[in-house]
Amino acid sequence: MSGVVIQNVQRADEATIAGLAAAGVATVHEAQGRKGLMASYMRPIYPGARIAGSAVTISAPPGDNWMLHVAIEQLRKGDILVLAPTSPCEDGYFGDLLATSARAHGCQGLIIEAGVRDIRDLKEMDFPVWSKAVFAQGTIKATLGSVNVPIVCAGAAVNAGDIIVADDDGVCVIAREEAEEVLAAAQRREANEEEKRKRLAAGELGLDIYDMRVRLKDMGLKYV
Amino acid sequence: MSGVVIQNVQRADEATIAGLAAAGVATVHEAQGRKGLMASYMRPIYPGARIAGSAVTISAPPGDNWMLHVAIEQLRKGDILVLAPTSPCEDGYFGDLLATSARAHGCQGLIIEAGVRDIRDLKEMDFPVWSKAVFAQGTIKATLGSVNVPIVCAGAAVNAGDIIVADDDGVCVIAREEAEEVLAAAQRREANEEEKRKRLAAGELGLDIYDMRVRLKDMGLKYV
Amino acid sequence: MSGVVIQNVQRADEATIAGLAAAGVATVHEAQGRKGLMASYMRPIYPGARIAGSAVTISAPPGDNWMLHVAIEQLRKGDILVLAPTSPCEDGYFGDLLATSARAHGCQGLIIEAGVRDIRDLKEMDFPVWSKAVFAQGTIKATLGSVNVPIVCAGAAVNAGDIIVADDDGVCVIAREEAEEVLAAAQRREANEEEKRKRLAAGELGLDIYDMRVRLKDMGLKYV
Amino acid sequence: MSGVVIQNVQRADEATIAGLAAAGVATVHEAQGRKGLMASYMRPIYPGARIAGSAVTISAPPGDNWMLHVAIEQLRKGDILVLAPTSPCEDGYFGDLLATSARAHGCQGLIIEAGVRDIRDLKEMDFPVWSKAVFAQGTIKATLGSVNVPIVCAGAAVNAGDIIVADDDGVCVIAREEAEEVLAAAQRREANEEEKRKRLAAGELGLDIYDMRVRLKDMGLKYV
Amino acid sequence: MSGVVIQNVQRADEATIAGLAAAGVATVHEAQGRKGLMASYMRPIYPGARIAGSAVTISAPPGDNWMLHVAIEQLRKGDILVLAPTSPCEDGYFGDLLATSARAHGCQGLIIEAGVRDIRDLKEMDFPVWSKAVFAQGTIKATLGSVNVPIVCAGAAVNAGDIIVADDDGVCVIAREEAEEVLAAAQRREANEEEKRKRLAAGELGLDIYDMRVRLKDMGLKYV
Amino acid sequence: MSGVVIQNVQRADEATIAGLAAAGVATVHEAQGRKGLMASYMRPIYPGARIAGSAVTISAPPGDNWMLHVAIEQLRKGDILVLAPTSPCEDGYFGDLLATSARAHGCQGLIIEAGVRDIRDLKEMDFPVWSKAVFAQGTIKATLGSVNVPIVCAGAAVNAGDIIVADDDGVCVIAREEAEEVLAAAQRREANEEEKRKRLAAGELGLDIYDMRVRLKDMGLKYV
Repeated sequence: MSGVVIQNVQRADEATIAGLAAAGVATVHEAQGRKGLMASYMRPIYPGARIAGSAVTISAPPGDNWMLHVAIEQLRKGDILVLAPTSPCEDGYFGDLLATSARAHGCQGLIIEAGVRDIRDLKEMDFPVWSKAVFAQGTIKATLGSVNVPIVCAGAAVNAGDIIVADDDGVCVIAREEAEEVLAAAQRREANEEEKRKRLAAGELGLDIYDMRVRLKDMGLKYV
Repeated sequence: MSGVVIQNVQRADEATIAGLAAAGVATVHEAQGRKGLMASYMRPIYPGARIAGSAVTISAPPGDNWMLHVAIEQLRKGDILVLAPTSPCEDGYFGDLLATSARAHGCQGLIIEAGVRDIRDLKEMDFPVWSKAVFAQGTIKATLGSVNVPIVCAGAAVNAGDIIVADDDGVCVIAREEAEEVLAAAQRREANEEEKRKRLAAGELGLDIYDMRVRLKDMGLKYV
Repeated sequence: MSGVVIQNVQRADEATIAGLAAAGVATVHEAQGRKGLMASYMRPIYPGARIAGSAVTISAPPGDNWMLHVAIEQLRKGDILVLAPTSPCEDGYFGDLLATSARAHGCQGLIIEAGVRDIRDLKEMDFPVWSKAVFAQGTIKATLGSVNVPIVCAGAAVNAGDIIVADDDGVCVIAREEAEEVLAAAQRREANEEEKRKRLAAGELGLDIYDMRVRLKDMGLKYV
Repeated sequence: MSGVVIQNVQRADEATIAGLAAAGVATVHEAQGRKGLMASYMRPIYPGARIAGSAVTISAPPGDNWMLHVAIEQLRKGDILVLAPTSPCEDGYFGDLLATSARAHGCQGLIIEAGVRDIRDLKEMDFPVWSKAVFAQGTIKATLGSVNVPIVCAGAAVNAGDIIVADDDGVCVIAREEAEEVLAAAQRREANEEEKRKRLAAGELGLDIYDMRVRLKDMGLKYV
Repeated sequence: MSGVVIQNVQRADEATIAGLAAAGVATVHEAQGRKGLMASYMRPIYPGARIAGSAVTISAPPGDNWMLHVAIEQLRKGDILVLAPTSPCEDGYFGDLLATSARAHGCQGLIIEAGVRDIRDLKEMDFPVWSKAVFAQGTIKATLGSVNVPIVCAGAAVNAGDIIVADDDGVCVIAREEAEEVLAAAQRREANEEEKRKRLAAGELGLDIYDMRVRLKDMGLKYV
Repeated sequence: MSGVVIQNVQRADEATIAGLAAAGVATVHEAQGRKGLMASYMRPIYPGARIAGSAVTISAPPGDNWMLHVAIEQLRKGDILVLAPTSPCEDGYFGDLLATSARAHGCQGLIIEAGVRDIRDLKEMDFPVWSKAVFAQGTIKATLGSVNVPIVCAGAAVNAGDIIVADDDGVCVIAREEAEEVLAAAQRREANEEEKRKRLAAGELGLDIYDMRVRLKDMGLKYV
């Protein structure tokens, strides 16, 4: 099953991806019907980054980072590497040397359901990573995995070419075929939120804006 | 049992609350006999905030943030929202829209034994949150909970109107009736520490300052 | 078994320790054959610190920080305190007063498989700590432990006088007898990496630099 | 705050307690409005036991089981010991000697948000325990705690004299004042379930028994 | 996205499913190239059961078990229910009433990345469940989910009609299209193991049976 | 560092080992001054076994069980295999084939800070295992580890030839040099406990047997 590299994966267009990056994880997650969110243990190694890009997926054995080298050759400008180990592992698959190589091939960042190291260097390089752990533990290069096959990463199914959006709120996956539709929904949502924000800031209550009082009373809410 | 909103909860006076904020979590926790501390997984979404205020409590179903809207109407200036789900949940009950609304009604911050989202916006707004998780997962508005009933949040019993102190060390609850007494004890403790700090900084040993050597020897401590 | 303080522990020489600090955790861990790394839950209380020093070890009962006072007397300039509880505990054994005292006796920082508190003060003092938890819970002074005995801290065996290296990647232990050899290996590794970094930054692939293509093909990697 | 033993706690009557034991945790939890359940990590040390009794509460320091001896003197026939440490701890506070003593004073079992040991002996004695951990780690007798004060155990608030129901599904607390009402509700629930069970066993669908089809359709459920 | 029930899902043939049940999880997992295994936290509520069947999948909101009623109508003889919540939840979605209903419609067992209750009754009924938790916490019926859509359950992607194999070792998913091939591989593996078992029982070493000595020596293994 | 097999390790004598097995984990742990206990997550795969034997230690890469074959050749009658991965891993390193081989070479059981599989077979064979996880995930044979080197397993330092005692309470390590002394202390402890058990069973209180009342009063315990 492993030992396969799928080349020439189709990507979404740049404008759609840029739009999703601007919307951010929480909005995109809502806009696509609350699916595609990775587990909450996927945290950024430093705050403030917000990226979106096409997924180059990696299925890697525990403690073996060989396939990262293989995957880097498959990168195109703006892509994001997404690695899931074949069994739970928090070894440090990735550090500043691999980041240097990945960036030279257009990579924007890494999503890894395992560990990462050289955190200080990665922050200085401004190379963002969302990971399950920070761990210096070294890995080997002894066993094949696969590149651009479907994976499950931190509870989310990811296909190569899907769009990844990642920011301080976590990581969300959008199917390539649904990207435009999700972007449109996200933008509608943002427009709608802007007006709500103003009314809420002015002191109007959600109870009134969203007309909740009658329904709450009907359900039996009692004020004492 | 749920479906109740208790109004007109009594609060401690402002000066007492301000004094507890100045003392901070570690000191207040010690001053009240080492009780009231929430679990260590309650972490601030950004470092540096230190707040104290009266608790407006929320008991909410898992994945349902409806009661936050109800609770916001009950806020008074300086209050802190404290939410405990009725079963373990890390969904993102709260984001920048609710923070905008809560702040408009005087809220200083949120303590939530669940998830929070829109982290970057909350940080820009300087709206502090202590939570169990950062998670973008959306919630619904379908089931009643209660507001200002007694809750257990992250292992600590909280009554509406109790004082919450929160800083980088975590979150501590002080019973309203004990607030003045705890503040007095905290201030005594701080005065006492100041002198100790100077002596320790000058190189005096705790072994000598606290007269520990004899007792250690009596208990059998051996130097080899 | 407990109740022992071993004095006059041998330390590695300063230059070796300084060299290991400069190399950092990930490099040192690799250079010594991928051993000695503490568990990934040992995290710095603030980012950016990188220290190395000789370990003064502490075996302490759960919830009892008495031995910290005893250990501080055993410190020499540049040492690092390393505390392991005798059973799992996340109480706040250490805060700003003990940090003040430890620093006055030459201590560079603390490694603790338990909790720490007064985080904001420690950061202002620039006193780095790597801990399992941040927790304000107070401790007592009732039971003996030991100082400078062999301990297991966060999965790593530590002897007094071993060298601790700690940075944003975590904490690594180097046996005193092996320190010079490890430093030499670390420096060779760094020199080697520098050249690799340049070639990778220029776009050369690891697949080519490390001559991996033939071996991958032999193992059956298929491009489709 | 600690160092208090409250004597002569009021208990619920025996018949009510026996009725709650017969109903079991899941039914009682539902009958009292889905509150009072301890966290799911509270597991029985062997399957099959189902008990109910009045709580004798213990607030104990981490790693210190002294108060168990004090609490045993406060036991009456049919009581259940409920211990919460003042900070997270999994030490083995309780083993076969204490079980022998507790049973001699009428104790039916132990609920402990910490560790327990001598599992094989306890099983042979048929002395049931629900605990957070099985751990042989020894404890000391050096610091005071309290007996029969209000505690929070595994997320549930417990007052002395409250009724504890425990079985293979976990542990539930019922306030003494509500015990009769909860028992009545539990018995109504059981009667109601019996008829449902027969219809379901005969192949009738919940969709029909509970008249769900129209509401599901109204909410938009689509069959494809 | 939710609110869909897919009917008339294709199943694998009975003989193939029976063969996979006989092989068991560990063998099937190996035979299909070490994929499809659910996370190790999925544990049986009692030991000894070994089942295989076609998956009827359920995507359910946290704390809402409504879709179980919908799914039961979709069951055919021998099927297995597989439920994944849309965000982490350990509530008790399933108990003896639902088990009674599911069994009446041919269900062999339940796989649930959440909680289950009425453990003692389920064991008496001999209705096996593999779950993330045992928890009596009740659920509601307020929000739609979906039935027979693709889900990710405990880290494994599951499509309706895939074969589930579950025993004391955990839970494994086999794609329907690959079931026959996997069964053939599993049976070859078992035949091969039988001979190995005899030789190993007679004292022959794996080092010799698998011809490992030369390769170990070549890689540098040293006997001292 | 890895790639070493140490042969001809010294063992403790059989009578001492048998004595320690009879005493059990809790007693032995107390008798040797409360050290050597492995973490509470090390659980038996089935209840009821109690064994003691000399440790044959294995340091293995994550997901690689090759060294188990090497270690089996080093076994002598009554030995216990003790495996620690070099980084956290819960893969199933061990199943019924390896158990068959290990038993043929005298092995009594396995202690593994990782996963195990073929649970049902192991139970039928009555081959006890204490592990961190039950997980069917397969391992490879690609990288060297070491046999009979010092390891840290589940927080306890283990040297080859140390005595392992394991039962339903967990796993404890006794240094070979201290084994006789520990056994003597354990037997004294058991003799002492026997008399206590009788008095406690007769209703005498620990408060009186251990003369605690005065000390409790002196420390300030108040009865109200």
